[in-house]
Amino acid sequence: MHEDIVDLFLKNFHEVSQIGATAGGGVHRQAATAEDKLTRDWFARYASQQGWNLEIDQIGNMFALVKLVEDPAASAILVGSHLDSQPNGGRFDGAYGVIASLHAAASVQRAVAAGDLIVSHNLIVVNWFNEEGGRFAPSLMGSAVYAGKMDLTQMLSVTDVDGITVKQALEGIGYRTDSKGPQNIAGYAEIHIEQGRILEREAVQLGVVDSSWYTQKLDIEVLGEQSHTGATAMADRRDALVGASHVILAMEKITEQFAPETLVSSVGQVTVEPNSPIVVNSRVHMVADLRANDPRIVQEARQILLEKFKTLSNELNLEIVAEDFDIRPNLYFPLEGVELAEKVAADLGQPVRRMQTMAGHDSVSMNTVAPSVMLFVPSENGISHCEREYTSDEDMAAGLRWLTGVISEMLQGALDDTDFPGQAEQYNAELKKELA
Amino acid sequence: MHEDIVDLFLKNFHEVSQIGATAGGGVHRQAATAEDKLTRDWFARYASQQGWNLEIDQIGNMFALVKLVEDPAASAILVGSHLDSQPNGGRFDGAYGVIASLHAAASVQRAVAAGDLIVSHNLIVVNWFNEEGGRFAPSLMGSAVYAGKMDLTQMLSVTDVDGITVKQALEGIGYRTDSKGPQNIAGYAEIHIEQGRILEREAVQLGVVDSSWYTQKLDIEVLGEQSHTGATAMADRRDALVGASHVILAMEKITEQFAPETLVSSVGQVTVEPNSPIVVNSRVHMVADLRANDPRIVQEARQILLEKFKTLSNELNLEIVAEDFDIRPNLYFPLEGVELAEKVAADLGQPVRRMQTMAGHDSVSMNTVAPSVMLFVPSENGISHCEREYTSDEDMAAGLRWLTGVISEMLQGALDDTDFPGQAEQYNAELKKELA
Repeated sequence: MHEDIVDLFLKNFHEVSQIGATAGGGVHRQAATAEDKLTRDWFARYASQQGWNLEIDQIGNMFALVKLVEDPAASAILVGSHLDSQPNGGRFDGAYGVIASLHAAASVQRAVAAGDLIVSHNLIVVNWFNEEGGRFAPSLMGSAVYAGKMDLTQMLSVTDVDGITVKQALEGIGYRTDSKGPQNIAGYAEIHIEQGRILEREAVQLGVVDSSWYTQKLDIEVLGEQSHTGATAMADRRDALVGASHVILAMEKITEQFAPETLVSSVGQVTVEPNSPIVVNSRVHMVADLRANDPRIVQEARQILLEKFKTLSNELNLEIVAEDFDIRPNLYFPLEGVELAEKVAADLGQPVRRMQTMAGHDSVSMNTVAPSVMLFVPSENGISHCEREYTSDEDMAAGLRWLTGVISEMLQGALDDTDFPGQAEQYNAELKKELA
Repeated sequence: MHEDIVDLFLKNFHEVSQIGATAGGGVHRQAATAEDKLTRDWFARYASQQGWNLEIDQIGNMFALVKLVEDPAASAILVGSHLDSQPNGGRFDGAYGVIASLHAAASVQRAVAAGDLIVSHNLIVVNWFNEEGGRFAPSLMGSAVYAGKMDLTQMLSVTDVDGITVKQALEGIGYRTDSKGPQNIAGYAEIHIEQGRILEREAVQLGVVDSSWYTQKLDIEVLGEQSHTGATAMADRRDALVGASHVILAMEKITEQFAPETLVSSVGQVTVEPNSPIVVNSRVHMVADLRANDPRIVQEARQILLEKFKTLSNELNLEIVAEDFDIRPNLYFPLEGVELAEKVAADLGQPVRRMQTMAGHDSVSMNTVAPSVMLFVPSENGISHCEREYTSDEDMAAGLRWLTGVISEMLQGALDDTDFPGQAEQYNAELKKELA
């Protein structure tokens, strides 16, 4: 790896952090907003300066095509992450992976041009649309549509709180076409900040993900009756907000019934109606989130919660309706990719921690399309999705060198003989049987 | 009272109920919206048809001037209520009082013209701006500014959730001038639905208000830290929404520490940030409401709550800031007005229940300007601020006859010698001393 590219990467990373920057050191660049457009324009400019063609697909994913081989039938290795952020989010989540991928690609291209590296695949750098799902739910939208895991038409018609659709928003910033994007993908690699504290706790700079947690969401609606906060006797009230508060606390308390750090649970989004200072609220809608490595823990927690909601509903004379959605089974990354990442790190003289991801990533979608490798670097204090998110330049540079090595190997065919989806499919089939 | 006017009143009332009507039988006519403009236009048209001049003041109150005496220095009796509603509110709250006042005025005017009634004051029918406070807080805005209890400049700059100011909204619908409105007011009368179940429970059709409850609001902010709902360990979270849920339940539970029906408490408005499905929330802002007849109950409840918030804040590692605002002391209506209302009802052969109001009313502001009389008719099941709010035609008609009699007496000078503010001021001074 050329060290001048590492320096340029750091310079570019800190420049991009200024787009949509918040006073608290984070960024506010939700999907398909004016700020998201500015980072997309930056990505397009970088690709153009390198002489790479740009392709935009039907759900707003951006692909920079790095031509490395002459054969027009050659398949490609895809590498990337996402440039969108949470509201007042961190500047590393997603953006680090995309900017590292662009510079890894520049480094590889230079090595190929110099005759130092002979490859059998082309390379494509991708910026996935709406990984965060803050403005438009669900998250992982761009990669999941690309991978055929979510329906295009349905996703294009998802609206934000102002009623603007994904289609309108993407076309509004000029980043949608009718293309399906590049096909014939031989492998995918992604690097991301850990968003947890395992690497920091164990003082290891590099983590490779072998599997993802089981996750599911609950769509919860509490229905009461609107009345006057002043004139209505307490006994006559059917306050949906009081019901919702019991639900939120139940969602939190449920984790205490399981071993520490085996289950996480929360309510992220809440809509209150009519939400007027002197009116008892009639309706609260919530999106709750349950995650565990072991799917049986999520299933058991869910069952206890549904029973609890039934009891609350009777006690409080409210209607509480909870529905499952966005269920994501555990997903196993190919062992060959994990071992490749470990081998490349060993060549760099670096230890690697094998780990699971609790958060969703675009690599989870892509691992259903082609053998995928997911790499982590540390997050200070495990903090993420907030302005205080932090990863040092040293850790980012170490990750960039590692990613460059991994894609160099993949471009040479290191994962071409991977038993794919093989192991992952087998694991998932076993899990399905167990849960049925 | 001319019975043809009672029939016309009922016809007009049900017509106005169609403006901003909701599918559930209510109305959605928040202050200074397009629907509010339509009811205002209806009010202006009615006044014009009667030959009454219309005056709009600096905070959007509407005054229809009913000239009954020749003396240009004659003072006026004011009668009215408000045409704005809560979001998805009831069709009786406020509108009943305004439409009854217009028809009571028409009836009085006809009697004066026929020589059946000789009066010493003019009459003015008023539609107060933004009694509800649903779109722009605080409530009672129009009458409180008119009465000098709230600052005009400050109120004009209050914004709704979309950032639109009161001034912009009023000028947008064409209902604001620089006038202070009519001065030289000798008395005020208002009729309203009870919004409680006392009249229904006791099977009495008419209620006269002798005092209002002590009320205060709390502005509560819970501050935690934004993080990832998936990747953050439960022990590392500082979830403002969990904190807010504890606050909401504490606000509800506090009423159980006092005798039944002596204290009401609730959280009506909630703002959650950043409110994204996969982000632990960093900030929740709430408006809470405490009301009791006895101010010492509110003070004691408030003290217990502030202690509870301190404990919660420590236990949950969150910041909880609660600030008092919109404190409204008990207010006593002049005994002369209460007795006048009872005398008029007796002449109509009707019993009257003396009662307190838990809800705020424009008459509470006006009672600081001139001797005021506040009349109630029943609310079915005590339900209010919702689409199911209901008062029968019979009860509305009985109220209209009563109101017409009360203002006829006031126009003849029945409350001119009232010891005002006298009794009310004395009560309030005693309370202030007690609370100091």
